Order: sequence, then C-alpha cells, then structure tokens
Amino acid sequence: MRISQLVEESGVPLATVKYYLREGLLPPGTATTATQADYSEQHLHRLRVIRALTGAAGLPVQRARAVLALIDAPDGDLFESLGRAVAALPPYAGVDPDGDYPRARAVIERLGQLFDPQYAAVAQLEHALKAAEDAGLPISDERIEAYGRHLHAIAEFDLGQMPSAAAASDAAAGSAAIEYAVLGTALYEPVILAMRRLAHQDVAAGILEGGHD
Amino acid sequence: MRISQLVEESGVPLATVKYYLREGLLPPGTATTATQADYSEQHLHRLRVIRALTGAAGLPVQRARAVLALIDAPDGDLFESLGRAVAALPPYAGVDPDGDYPRARAVIERLGQLFDPQYAAVAQLEHALKAAEDAGLPISDERIEAYGRHLHAIAEFDLGQMPSAAAASDAAAGSAAIEYAVLGTALYEPVILAMRRLAHQDVAAGILEGGHD
Repeated sequence: MRISQLVEESGVPLATVKYYLREGLLPPGTATTATQADYSEQHLHRLRVIRALTGAAGLPVQRARAVLALIDAPDGDLFESLGRAVAALPPYAGVDPDGDYPRARAVIERLGQLFDPQYAAVAQLEHALKAAEDAGLPISDERIEAYGRHLHAIAEFDLGQMPSAAAASDAAAGSAAIEYAVLGTALYEPVILAMRRLAHQDVAAGILEGGHD
Repeated sequence: MRISQLVEESGVPLATVKYYLREGLLPPGTATTATQADYSEQHLHRLRVIRALTGAAGLPVQRARAVLALIDAPDGDLFESLGRAVAALPPYAGVDPDGDYPRARAVIERLGQLFDPQYAAVAQLEHALKAAEDAGLPISDERIEAYGRHLHAIAEFDLGQMPSAAAASDAAAGSAAIEYAVLGTALYEPVILAMRRLAHQDVAAGILEGGHD
C-alpha cells in the first residue's frame, strides 16, 4: 500500500508516520519509484505497536526503540529478553542490582517466589511497599497472601495466552511472545485497576445496605 | 507537640507543613502563646495522609483538599462519599453521566455487576479497553472472566479489611472508611501491579525451561 493508505488505515497522521520512519521505529517500505514506497500489513501492525508503546504505555521514543529492538531480534535467552522488554515500561523505580530490597524480599519469599534484585519489578514493589508503610497502611501478611494467590492465578492465565510460548527457541515465536508480554503488561494493567475499582463498588454496594439504589 | 517536633516526627519539611496550614489541608494547632501552637497525634496522622495523597497518589493540592473534605465530613450516603473520594484519584478519564461506554458496559454486564456510568471507573475501564483494542489486543471474554473472578476476590478481601464498614452510620467510622478506601486504592494499586509482574516472571521461569537458573 502507499503511505497515504497506511495513514488512512492506521489513523496515524502522515507527519507522525514520517517521524517514526526517520527515527527508525518503522522500517522503510519497499521503494517502487524514486519518490514512492510500498508498505505492507507488517507496517500497519508495527504502527499499532508503536502507538501503543508511545501512547497508552507512555514510553519515551528512546525506550520504545529499545523495546522494538528486542521484539525484532530477541537474543537467545527469551526469559531475559522478556524481562528486559517489560522493564522498559514505567514506573521506573531504578534497579540497583546490589540493592537491598528488604520489604520486597520479605514479600517475595513469603510467596515462595525467587528473589532476584535484577528483576525491575523488585525495586517497583519495594517502592510501593515503602509508600504504603510511610502512609501508615503497611501491607499485612494476610493481604500479601490474598493478593499473591489471585495475582498468580491471573499471571498463569496471561502466560497461558502467550503466543507460542512453548516454541521459545524459534525467533519469530520469541518476537511474538515479547510483543505480547510488553503490550499485555502495558495495556492490561489499566484494565485490571479499573476492574478492581468497579469490583470495590460492587462489593461495597452489597455491604452498605441502603447506600445504593 | 511543638511544630518543630511535628516536622521531626513526620519528616515533612517546615516550609511544607506551613504551606499545608496556609492551604487549609492541615488544621491549625491549639494556640499556646501569641506565636506558638500545640499539635497533636491527629496532626501527625493528617500529615501522613496528605503526603500519601500528594506524593504516592499524585494528587494536585486542589483534589487532595476535596478528598480531605470528604474524610472530614462524609455526607449521609457513605457509598456515594466513597465513590466521590476514589474518583478524585488518577487516572482522570472524564466522566460523562450520559456517556455511552459500550466496551465497559459489555464487560460489567458480563460480570453481572451494576452498570452505572456515574462511577468514575466506568470511563476509566472504557478508555483502557479501547486502548487495548486499538493496539490489536482486544480483551477476550475468557480474559474478562478470569480477571473478573480474581479481582472480585481481591476486592472482597479489601472491603473485609475496611475499618468499621458495618457501622457506616457513625460519622467517625465513615471518615475512617473513606480514608481507607482512598489510601488503599492509591497505595495498593502499585503493589498489585508490581506483584503481577513478579508473578509473570515466576510463571514464565517455569514455562521457559532452561531460560532461568
């Protein structure tokens, strides 16, 4: 398709498409004449991914480029590529590999999961636990266990939907898995938070009789 | 206690404490001399709440004031006060009471919950569902059901921990419930997201054999 059609089908303005081409986020089309190029369904797909990363996920262009590089060429260790790709998403808590994350460590060990301070989410968890503690609402063991059980079940569902997770040695499957992990994390987190707030309202309506009609 | 002690115990700088006093977020102390006032444990507690709202929860001062007003004087309908308080938290999707939220409505009805477009989280959910759809990762019914089941269980746990939810007619209990709902939403959401990401890593490590040592 021509670039005008790419613009039309994606809904991304021409100036933005050209910017992505210049920045190397979107690969060039196949030149058909000196001034025209042909774009494929892959370009359309890539545009959607870029929009999700820089829009909904809120990534700066530099970080989006790093994620796209991992999608395009996952290295041999898919587990590590997945971790690096998801770590490019906000919030940026700042990982200190030698860091001591006492609150996060206690939670992770209580859940029977592996504590590895190189996981970006460890610093993220430490930061969140400390903020709750500072506000006088530290997370109880009971809450950790309740949250942990249900979030683990959600994670199992998520991974079960990961494209071709089993064929991890295949590069194309690796790319699809990384793309799914990044977009699924960025796009489904807001869904999860909204659904929890709505569930609160549903439960509260049941408890506070007369408080709702 | 003197204001200097309030500063020391809370860790909030003097200039900030004075700013909160000027802005009416922190009620004045009891004057002991023309230039000195006495502050109580309640002030210390209130300072922690203000810090959580304006810091971790990221509220602008105006919105923090609105939440504090609800905590101080919940109106007769606790359910509505809870909803208004939580709606003051980001993200701000912009509620349109006459709005048509087709994606959110379908999800809420599928979960058997009440669809009320006045709930702020409805617009939030619609926005999140649309972003996922635009990126080519629409949420399947199966995913909605899996997420919905576990998030409802988390919400039941959360509400079960709400202080004196049963004594909702009592104003002090109402205040405590609103404070818990707002702070619990703002402070535990980041914990939930970090825990889900860690659960992903745990599940992925199990699936991708050899990908993790």
